[in-house]
Amino acid sequence: MNGRLIINILARLLLLEAVLLLPSLGVALYYGEGDAMAFVYTLLLVLAVSLPLMLLKPKNKDVRAKEGLVAVSLAWVLLSAFGALPFMIHGGIPRFIDAMFETVSGFTTTGASIVRVVEDLPRGLLFWRSFTHWVGGMGVLILTLAIMPNLSGRGSVLARAESPGPTFSKAAPKMRDTARLMYAIYTVMTLIQLALMLVSGLPLYDALIHTLGTAGTGGFSNRNLSMGAYNNPWAEMITMAFMLLFGMNFVVYIRLLRGEGLKSFQSDEVKAYWLLAAASMLFIALEILPEYGNFLTALRYSSFQVSSIMSTTGYATTDFALWPAFSHILLLLLMLVGACAGSTAGGIKVSRVVILGKAANREIGQAAAPRKVRLLMMDKKQINEETLRSVLIFFFLYMAFLLLGTLVASTDGHDFVTSFSAAASCLSNIGPGLGLVGPVGNFDVFSPHVKVILTFLMLAGRLEFIPLLTLFHRELWNKSH
Amino acid sequence: MNGRLIINILARLLLLEAVLLLPSLGVALYYGEGDAMAFVYTLLLVLAVSLPLMLLKPKNKDVRAKEGLVAVSLAWVLLSAFGALPFMIHGGIPRFIDAMFETVSGFTTTGASIVRVVEDLPRGLLFWRSFTHWVGGMGVLILTLAIMPNLSGRGSVLARAESPGPTFSKAAPKMRDTARLMYAIYTVMTLIQLALMLVSGLPLYDALIHTLGTAGTGGFSNRNLSMGAYNNPWAEMITMAFMLLFGMNFVVYIRLLRGEGLKSFQSDEVKAYWLLAAASMLFIALEILPEYGNFLTALRYSSFQVSSIMSTTGYATTDFALWPAFSHILLLLLMLVGACAGSTAGGIKVSRVVILGKAANREIGQAAAPRKVRLLMMDKKQINEETLRSVLIFFFLYMAFLLLGTLVASTDGHDFVTSFSAAASCLSNIGPGLGLVGPVGNFDVFSPHVKVILTFLMLAGRLEFIPLLTLFHRELWNKSH
Repeated sequence: MNGRLIINILARLLLLEAVLLLPSLGVALYYGEGDAMAFVYTLLLVLAVSLPLMLLKPKNKDVRAKEGLVAVSLAWVLLSAFGALPFMIHGGIPRFIDAMFETVSGFTTTGASIVRVVEDLPRGLLFWRSFTHWVGGMGVLILTLAIMPNLSGRGSVLARAESPGPTFSKAAPKMRDTARLMYAIYTVMTLIQLALMLVSGLPLYDALIHTLGTAGTGGFSNRNLSMGAYNNPWAEMITMAFMLLFGMNFVVYIRLLRGEGLKSFQSDEVKAYWLLAAASMLFIALEILPEYGNFLTALRYSSFQVSSIMSTTGYATTDFALWPAFSHILLLLLMLVGACAGSTAGGIKVSRVVILGKAANREIGQAAAPRKVRLLMMDKKQINEETLRSVLIFFFLYMAFLLLGTLVASTDGHDFVTSFSAAASCLSNIGPGLGLVGPVGNFDVFSPHVKVILTFLMLAGRLEFIPLLTLFHRELWNKSH
Repeated sequence: MNGRLIINILARLLLLEAVLLLPSLGVALYYGEGDAMAFVYTLLLVLAVSLPLMLLKPKNKDVRAKEGLVAVSLAWVLLSAFGALPFMIHGGIPRFIDAMFETVSGFTTTGASIVRVVEDLPRGLLFWRSFTHWVGGMGVLILTLAIMPNLSGRGSVLARAESPGPTFSKAAPKMRDTARLMYAIYTVMTLIQLALMLVSGLPLYDALIHTLGTAGTGGFSNRNLSMGAYNNPWAEMITMAFMLLFGMNFVVYIRLLRGEGLKSFQSDEVKAYWLLAAASMLFIALEILPEYGNFLTALRYSSFQVSSIMSTTGYATTDFALWPAFSHILLLLLMLVGACAGSTAGGIKVSRVVILGKAANREIGQAAAPRKVRLLMMDKKQINEETLRSVLIFFFLYMAFLLLGTLVASTDGHDFVTSFSAAASCLSNIGPGLGLVGPVGNFDVFSPHVKVILTFLMLAGRLEFIPLLTLFHRELWNKSH
């Protein structure tokens, strides 16, 4: 293990965090609500730690899989730990476990909160909280690029030996270009949404907060009632559209920019994504119809909620935990699925669900007619058995962490739906769950040890398990490799 | 597809069912509670259908995978449909959907019931209900032998082309011998339990009912309070021990008979099974301690319940749904796991969980040090990638059916824990769940369409998905193979 290299990467990322703290400092100074000094102290601390470490130059700059995995995992933990400081220094969230929960929830674009009354926090801190969503969403796009197979056709980078890790120090120029393009798309889409939100009549600050939360598919709000506080159908519709758009595979936008037109949408995943969203919106609208009187109003609420849950954002315009059983259980299942790979969203991802379904179908066909050779196809390309295995194991890990997370959460004595949906919501980086952690509930109902586990689930889900779990695997610490 | 062959197999199995109805007819005649004629009419109907069909001789007697799968699936459906007749003819369970639910629950060794007051049914019918457990348990042992890899080292028979199906018409003599040995073990263990139950002081009829229910890991009782009705610690302890024994891989007994002594227990699955059971008993005993006053009493209740749930039997000595959250959620997770492969129990099976854990661990190690070649080992033998894939896909199918089953069950408007545990309980062939279908609850709370789906889940879980699902796969109906 090249420890100096990892420290160097982490120090550089910390320095980046110092830069990222500046806008929030600006907001804090502008509103003058007493949180500016918390940012100043944090900045000084971050600089005091990162600058000296920068001097520790690594001899060997080759980032192997090992170093990449460790650096990625530790980066998320470290940036969150330092990102938690403003809350603690200001005193708005005094305890470390709580501040860490809130900041990990921000960076992982989860949006689960332990703050009981959001309006009590000064606007600088609230801006920082939402800004971590936006930064986290961007971070996920890097990770996606590094981990996701298919895009470049080269297969998973991190899973292959000796390839450059997330610093791109020697990365293929193509990959670097794709990353830049993705950031550009992400930024432009954010700006468009912001403009539209302002047009809809939201104040600048509120528009900014909700745009940052939407782009990162995070879900933090500056209002306790979330988007429901405004009762502004235009803002809702804009948010809904952008939640779905940020949950779509960014490859679609790259293809659109390449001029592929409607063909850009021709992907098994993207089709399944829209189909699943549309069907769920319809079913829920039909079930909640009696509560809302007319179909269009029911559809307004159902489609906002389906978009919010599937994109793993977590905004709410109503307390969907009060909806009838089928509707809220369908939402619970959509929490597990999440949105597209290659987006800022969390969850199992639609592409994995499609692959799982195809693999199961093949297995059944194989039993019926064993002598026929069957290839697993997606988007007219063959899925190799190694990719299939990693998808199947991802699914197992997701379910294992969900169920064990539920079990740990249950030690607080809450009902099954609270514990299960809290674990699902954190693992899929959504935010609200059902029961006590529903849209009007709060994660503060859990005791410290459960909060630690839920924080771990947020990170595990965000990093898609493998990078984080390698930290606990003896192979990583084995000197012979 | 060789339709004549399938019809011939089914007709022979129906004839077997006629024979299996005789003991229940005897019980009905002995107690004279008005249900004897229901058995007589059923017998006549079964004979009227099966005998003429026997005349339809197949030209080709080779059972290929295809025919094997269809025959197995249809056999379970058909035997259940005819087995439901006594309940309907007698009028104790007048509706077909209900009688079918109860009989499938019997044959699949589930033990979930829609009968609100068991004591209202005549003893002949109750005996038949419990006898289906015992027959079903035996049927599972055949299936296990046919489907399970490992035992013979030849890999899954049904999954391989052209091998003889479940009728053993041309089966390897070795396999036939193993089957006979398994039946002998099953019968002898049943008789030993019956003798011990009588010694414990239970009346013959009650001892018989609970022994049949234990051997098949079914769980039907002739008392609404299940085993709790007797408050007989000896009967409880005997039942507990035999639930665990019937949930153990029968290969252990075969090895014991071969004189392998303590080495017979040296299997990764068996070790994990006892470890998981012991740990769960202990954790639950500690949590419920305040309710029961002393540790031994708490352990008595916790160990009975853990044994009952893990072995997928479903007997209860207390209403465990009232236990604190951690305890009943742990039981819920044990419902998914179930007991050992090669036993009469249901669920995912401990061996699959062990393999899944090992595979996940390998995947993580592979990410940390990609250039090392890793073999997946179990019981010092290598698990090939094909077996691993089928285990992974089984896990996906289990979870998919569990979650979709929960969604369908939720259309009745019950809470999440009721719908989820009902689906889990049926899929793992246990019986009771939590919430409205807890040990003092009843599956009659569901509407007919949900009962149909739950019946399907019982069959799907019992047949481990593939045979039943091939019926719905177009490959099966494709004439070219």
